[in-house]
Amino acid sequence: MISGPKLFHGIWESIANRGRDLLAKRLVVPETPLIPMCRELLTERGEASGMALGLEIAVRYQRLTAAQTEGFFQSLLGKEFLPEPAIVNAAAEDYREHPGSETLATLVAAAEPLRQELFRRINLAPGGTGILIAMRSDLLRLLPTHPELKPIDADLRHLLASWFNRGFLHVGRIDWKTPAMVLEKLIEYEAVHEIEGWDDLRRRLADDRRCFAFFHPLLPQQPLIFIEIALTHGTASSIQKLLDRSPKTQLPADADTATFYSISNCLEGLRGISFGNFLIKQVIAELKTEGLKIRTFETLSPMPGFREWWKRLPEKRRDTLATAREQDFLQALEARDWHQNAQLCAFVKPVLLRLGAQYLMRERAGGRTLDAVAAFHLGNGAAVERLHFLGDRSEKGMSRSFGLMVNYSYRSSRLERNHEDYVKHGRIAASSEIKALLQKASLGSPSVQEK
Amino acid sequence: MISGPKLFHGIWESIANRGRDLLAKRLVVPETPLIPMCRELLTERGEASGMALGLEIAVRYQRLTAAQTEGFFQSLLGKEFLPEPAIVNAAAEDYREHPGSETLATLVAAAEPLRQELFRRINLAPGGTGILIAMRSDLLRLLPTHPELKPIDADLRHLLASWFNRGFLHVGRIDWKTPAMVLEKLIEYEAVHEIEGWDDLRRRLADDRRCFAFFHPLLPQQPLIFIEIALTHGTASSIQKLLDRSPKTQLPADADTATFYSISNCLEGLRGISFGNFLIKQVIAELKTEGLKIRTFETLSPMPGFREWWKRLPEKRRDTLATAREQDFLQALEARDWHQNAQLCAFVKPVLLRLGAQYLMRERAGGRTLDAVAAFHLGNGAAVERLHFLGDRSEKGMSRSFGLMVNYSYRSSRLERNHEDYVKHGRIAASSEIKALLQKASLGSPSVQEK
Amino acid sequence: MISGPKLFHGIWESIANRGRDLLAKRLVVPETPLIPMCRELLTERGEASGMALGLEIAVRYQRLTAAQTEGFFQSLLGKEFLPEPAIVNAAAEDYREHPGSETLATLVAAAEPLRQELFRRINLAPGGTGILIAMRSDLLRLLPTHPELKPIDADLRHLLASWFNRGFLHVGRIDWKTPAMVLEKLIEYEAVHEIEGWDDLRRRLADDRRCFAFFHPLLPQQPLIFIEIALTHGTASSIQKLLDRSPKTQLPADADTATFYSISNCLEGLRGISFGNFLIKQVIAELKTEGLKIRTFETLSPMPGFREWWKRLPEKRRDTLATAREQDFLQALEARDWHQNAQLCAFVKPVLLRLGAQYLMRERAGGRTLDAVAAFHLGNGAAVERLHFLGDRSEKGMSRSFGLMVNYSYRSSRLERNHEDYVKHGRIAASSEIKALLQKASLGSPSVQEK
Amino acid sequence: MISGPKLFHGIWESIANRGRDLLAKRLVVPETPLIPMCRELLTERGEASGMALGLEIAVRYQRLTAAQTEGFFQSLLGKEFLPEPAIVNAAAEDYREHPGSETLATLVAAAEPLRQELFRRINLAPGGTGILIAMRSDLLRLLPTHPELKPIDADLRHLLASWFNRGFLHVGRIDWKTPAMVLEKLIEYEAVHEIEGWDDLRRRLADDRRCFAFFHPLLPQQPLIFIEIALTHGTASSIQKLLDRSPKTQLPADADTATFYSISNCLEGLRGISFGNFLIKQVIAELKTEGLKIRTFETLSPMPGFREWWKRLPEKRRDTLATAREQDFLQALEARDWHQNAQLCAFVKPVLLRLGAQYLMRERAGGRTLDAVAAFHLGNGAAVERLHFLGDRSEKGMSRSFGLMVNYSYRSSRLERNHEDYVKHGRIAASSEIKALLQKASLGSPSVQEK
Repeated sequence: MISGPKLFHGIWESIANRGRDLLAKRLVVPETPLIPMCRELLTERGEASGMALGLEIAVRYQRLTAAQTEGFFQSLLGKEFLPEPAIVNAAAEDYREHPGSETLATLVAAAEPLRQELFRRINLAPGGTGILIAMRSDLLRLLPTHPELKPIDADLRHLLASWFNRGFLHVGRIDWKTPAMVLEKLIEYEAVHEIEGWDDLRRRLADDRRCFAFFHPLLPQQPLIFIEIALTHGTASSIQKLLDRSPKTQLPADADTATFYSISNCLEGLRGISFGNFLIKQVIAELKTEGLKIRTFETLSPMPGFREWWKRLPEKRRDTLATAREQDFLQALEARDWHQNAQLCAFVKPVLLRLGAQYLMRERAGGRTLDAVAAFHLGNGAAVERLHFLGDRSEKGMSRSFGLMVNYSYRSSRLERNHEDYVKHGRIAASSEIKALLQKASLGSPSVQEK
Repeated sequence: MISGPKLFHGIWESIANRGRDLLAKRLVVPETPLIPMCRELLTERGEASGMALGLEIAVRYQRLTAAQTEGFFQSLLGKEFLPEPAIVNAAAEDYREHPGSETLATLVAAAEPLRQELFRRINLAPGGTGILIAMRSDLLRLLPTHPELKPIDADLRHLLASWFNRGFLHVGRIDWKTPAMVLEKLIEYEAVHEIEGWDDLRRRLADDRRCFAFFHPLLPQQPLIFIEIALTHGTASSIQKLLDRSPKTQLPADADTATFYSISNCLEGLRGISFGNFLIKQVIAELKTEGLKIRTFETLSPMPGFREWWKRLPEKRRDTLATAREQDFLQALEARDWHQNAQLCAFVKPVLLRLGAQYLMRERAGGRTLDAVAAFHLGNGAAVERLHFLGDRSEKGMSRSFGLMVNYSYRSSRLERNHEDYVKHGRIAASSEIKALLQKASLGSPSVQEK
Repeated sequence: MISGPKLFHGIWESIANRGRDLLAKRLVVPETPLIPMCRELLTERGEASGMALGLEIAVRYQRLTAAQTEGFFQSLLGKEFLPEPAIVNAAAEDYREHPGSETLATLVAAAEPLRQELFRRINLAPGGTGILIAMRSDLLRLLPTHPELKPIDADLRHLLASWFNRGFLHVGRIDWKTPAMVLEKLIEYEAVHEIEGWDDLRRRLADDRRCFAFFHPLLPQQPLIFIEIALTHGTASSIQKLLDRSPKTQLPADADTATFYSISNCLEGLRGISFGNFLIKQVIAELKTEGLKIRTFETLSPMPGFREWWKRLPEKRRDTLATAREQDFLQALEARDWHQNAQLCAFVKPVLLRLGAQYLMRERAGGRTLDAVAAFHLGNGAAVERLHFLGDRSEKGMSRSFGLMVNYSYRSSRLERNHEDYVKHGRIAASSEIKALLQKASLGSPSVQEK
Repeated sequence: MISGPKLFHGIWESIANRGRDLLAKRLVVPETPLIPMCRELLTERGEASGMALGLEIAVRYQRLTAAQTEGFFQSLLGKEFLPEPAIVNAAAEDYREHPGSETLATLVAAAEPLRQELFRRINLAPGGTGILIAMRSDLLRLLPTHPELKPIDADLRHLLASWFNRGFLHVGRIDWKTPAMVLEKLIEYEAVHEIEGWDDLRRRLADDRRCFAFFHPLLPQQPLIFIEIALTHGTASSIQKLLDRSPKTQLPADADTATFYSISNCLEGLRGISFGNFLIKQVIAELKTEGLKIRTFETLSPMPGFREWWKRLPEKRRDTLATAREQDFLQALEARDWHQNAQLCAFVKPVLLRLGAQYLMRERAGGRTLDAVAAFHLGNGAAVERLHFLGDRSEKGMSRSFGLMVNYSYRSSRLERNHEDYVKHGRIAASSEIKALLQKASLGSPSVQEK
């Protein structure tokens, strides 16, 4: 079996409540293979059987071995789950001759694969939505080696995107009053800065912290994506300080800054159906209703590709960005625990800040921002605000970005304009501090500087 | 303006909570026509503006006059909301040459009208789902005179069917503890036996009654379809007795029968996206969990086309179904208050019962059951159980079916089989009582009987 | 039976949920009189029987006739529900000789009547609290003719005051989303300005209105006291305008005033356990959280004793307060529809305002404010703000106060001081407008004015 | 400071919600001692100040050092919080001369200490109930060394008993969907078999387990007492098996027995206000509604005094209960890990079972059952059902009862009778198995057996 048990929580809860009886009545021939059951579900009678058959398929699906799962998807490619080509072609011909709203509608209807109807009927079962998400998660794992399965992914994605339309999601606050069943999912899914058990979790939900998630009405105990926030006085410059588990956890009376320090997706099966940008904006709105005096909303973000970028930079380009001496010192950062060398730090700090600004603001590949995290926040309309030397001293942080971190600031009044500037013209909004770093960067051509 | 205010309740509630600020900021140029706003919503920037623009469109839509509404729909037919024919044709060509899952997926993607994306973005606004339902309601009213608008209906219906997939609905019990905002909708939408104000409503929610509805998580105060039930000892044979507003409303200790006496859809904009059959089955399941001793689940239903059928029957066919004398007496039923004539009643009772059985069980038009109510219940797998002479003495009942009513019985163990028999083979399940009536009907050829 | 059915709603709901089975098992000997059952409830075994016996007593109590109810209370006076005098006297003697905390505690424990324990055990039954409230309601009706029952009232009141300690109540907003079961209680209990059915009620819960109630966790569907509020721009000067059922019910964008126009107690059985003052203060706090721009919080109140006071005033005192001519005109107000006589109105308006101020501010009986409504608001720390000529043109208003109404203003910052001034020194806070009227009143001695 | 922080959770939550503003306005003179503030709270003005002053007292109380806490209670003994002796004596005299309901009521009213009113007013503050529970908890710790404080305890207990009247409590199911804030209290308060962190807790809330608690509406996140249950097929004979953290946690399809294996009180401040007996009965009722096939409801209980009893038994009595040889073997149980000696086990098993039955069924001190756990369950009407040799192999279990455990069975139909038999006549209900053991016990006189 490919899919882990976690994705099925939702299903089993529902079954516990409603489906047990249904199951008790149906599960008589445990050996029936899945595909014939899917075929039956698509018949008149299958529809009439209501949720029972869909539930059975959901349960059976879970018990498949990895090989069987793959076989199941291969079968779904079969003709029986596709429309009659003759009918599609006729509709296409009709449209070609009389292109218009009506012929188009006919064509679309004719071309819809039966798989979509199958998935819709599975969705009728208690927990059906959860099983479809699990199916897609399995499928995504198979795709790299089985690209022929892509059309199934297209169908699943089409349906899930429709059902997880952002208009159907609501923001929920997560704190120590939240059910344990939801909280343990934070521990499980935190992707940026791992949560080490319940004590760590509790600290992240203390009085000076906030946590919000998107929920879908059909998966009430399942966060889809969540965001962790620290409320502080002034800017947070070090992730280690934020993650510190010291017991001083009261909300500072003078808190004026909300730092978004982690955002994690929960369900692999919803990959590509993104709502992270919406979450940040709604969370800012929520925080504003709380009556606190928060004025600054910004992230404390990693720069996951910074070091890699520098390493892979052609020598020529490197030479335009840093002096030979600087490059030597950067080389010294290969050593373990270099950050405990104060002298070295003093020297490389301005160099790293300058190169960090260059990396975020100017480097592109095929017209795109190199850094995935930057691309996400800039696409949301945020601005590059501030770089923090040794903002992340963890092994991961040191190895990915020499410990550099960055604040992206979210200013409601500028989000739309920034977004448009970025998406249409590739212009990146930045603070004057960052712009100043860039100027140094452009001056940093070896010939000029080395004098 | 075409659409009544009722459909917008949902929207206005949401706006009250979340959208007021959004609106306050945006609604600056009240004269901008709708279509350019829709166009903007489809741009990058439009998406980034989040819910604000969608909300504005929703609000503006509501203020349209009838003429403007029609104009709006006509504009939605425009090319800008359709895909490029060249792209669609190319994809169709590709599919024709290499029919398969993948080329089909490309074709479907290419052929999707932009209108669908537009509607999806409107759905992001607070209350957006409500406005789309209202739009479709308006559209359905325009369709008879404007058949060219059908493709828009196809798009709306496609999306709404997806979002109102029955897996997303939940059954809610409605009683005197239900919010007034929901209850007043029962008064508004009851389509079978009108509710005359709050006292009447209260009686229908008393201890010996049940009322259930389907709700969608996005429209929490809006029943989609509801069903009214009376719990009695023995069969309910007269709708007037059930609707009686006498104060004796305690649940009888020996209640053994649940009579479904009314089922009403609420939202015209969801027409054709039916869930009535699911509701009945789930309600039976709910009633079983209550710990009562209900064993019989049946409807008390009108036969809306019975009299009309008889009136329009060719003389020849009439003669095979009733003797001349019987026909004379049936003629007498044109008189007002004929049911107060005991002698007449005694004579026509067996005739009406016999003809009623004939009408329900044997009469078809184009292979279909004549009676729409019968078609619904038989399609669900119910059986024709019993006919009630003068079961409905209301003016409506007398004029549509000479007062005849019918019980359709729902027996869980037989629903699937009955459904299949009916849908595949046109066989109708019936009690022996009904079958006996049919035998008399077949004997009723004038030549034989009149002797 | 004395008690109306309404008080038992709470009980019956609970019974429906939990107690039916209990009842089914117990109610075997329907003729057992109540008192022996109460005796049994006080035994070891009675306590062990848990809620069943208490529930039975509750049910039986309800079925008593008026005569039986009185008999029941008389029996509760019996020795078996009182402590042993010898024990009480010994404890009292002990205390007298060694007065102190400990001997006092012994005395209090010795003197507690067994009735209190009886009531506590009845309270364990589902709905027990409701039945005790109903008992006290019955008892209060009997007290005027049966003063000997006072000690029972003392016990019930002691317990109810403890259980309805204001710390246990919470403010709930009531609007059109509130369950019908709660809403119908507003119609039933509104004591100040009758609610005429559901349409009237709906108007009072419209967008420009607010309604709040105190609820107790044990009676979730039962408001204890509720208050009705209109949000307007500027002061509300006429109750008829507020009660007008016109459809214009949107919240004015410039609303700055919250007018508390009605406050009603719901449960007679809680008489004397007042929480009205707390409700007003908490409601003001609630309104402030709503984000509206309300700055003025005031009542629009009747002056129920004004006309009566004037009528009964000794001639001599009258002569010091109004000229002969003024008195003649006031006499003319005995005529029906005098308020349609514009000339008469013009003349009596200043006279009524002056006398109204005199009545509210200066008239006392035994040191107490004459007007009960005034006494309530002044005791809360409110100030007399403004008088409205013909503020209430209803028959009731005209006959009790010549149509005069008054605003009492609640200013948070002054409530404590005003309260103390009023309670300790009898000083009444008033606006300069009211004070100016008073000065005219003091000038109004006939000898001076009539010249 | 005496009181631990845990008792104040409730308070701080409430303050977070409602009281922050109140506090912000009031806490100006942080050095004012508590007693003058209490005095002020008892004045007219104090009452008018509403919750603010009570809240301040609550907050200040928490900050007291241990010495200050004691001083605070000593001050509460002062005359200012007691009634005037003259008034009490006069009322007592009056009652002595005219003993009756009315004079008694006057006496009770006169004798009530002002402290009660003080506590009532503190209860008005947000979280006030929590602070009073904390006060009593502190007080109970002081009582052994400060018996003079008893009268304060009497007052607090009187009020808390009234407010925590069992009619106000509701049973809540606790499972993995319960808020973490509640769950962590289980870990904190479990008194019988310690919960070792969140994983252990999770296992105790798995599918084959149940956990219920009593909650009070005023302390929504605070269980008052909770009970842990295992659902098994057949009797649970070993607590270690129940506490095993293996992952097999599905509810067995053939579960027929509910074993109550732990019951723990949470709030020391409610000591003596017991509701454990009610909880067990209500939990049985809850379990019956679940639709499972549980027929047996029994505990798996420790026998905490068994070994101690045997050790302290006079030699003479010992000799009547066990042969010399048996006594020698029992002596061998002083060795560590004796239970790994199979031969020894085989010999002592029947002896321990016999003595265990003797201990539970026949041994008394001053007419009372020796074993506190037995006394609780027998008082509830349970029966001694079965003894388990080595039912508890933990160190605690071995040292307190040689590892013996006992099932007490709860049979609804017999609870009342058993309770009465036990309380009135000292008769203990037991299974035939236990009775058989007793017969052996009585035969166990050395003279007879040793032959």
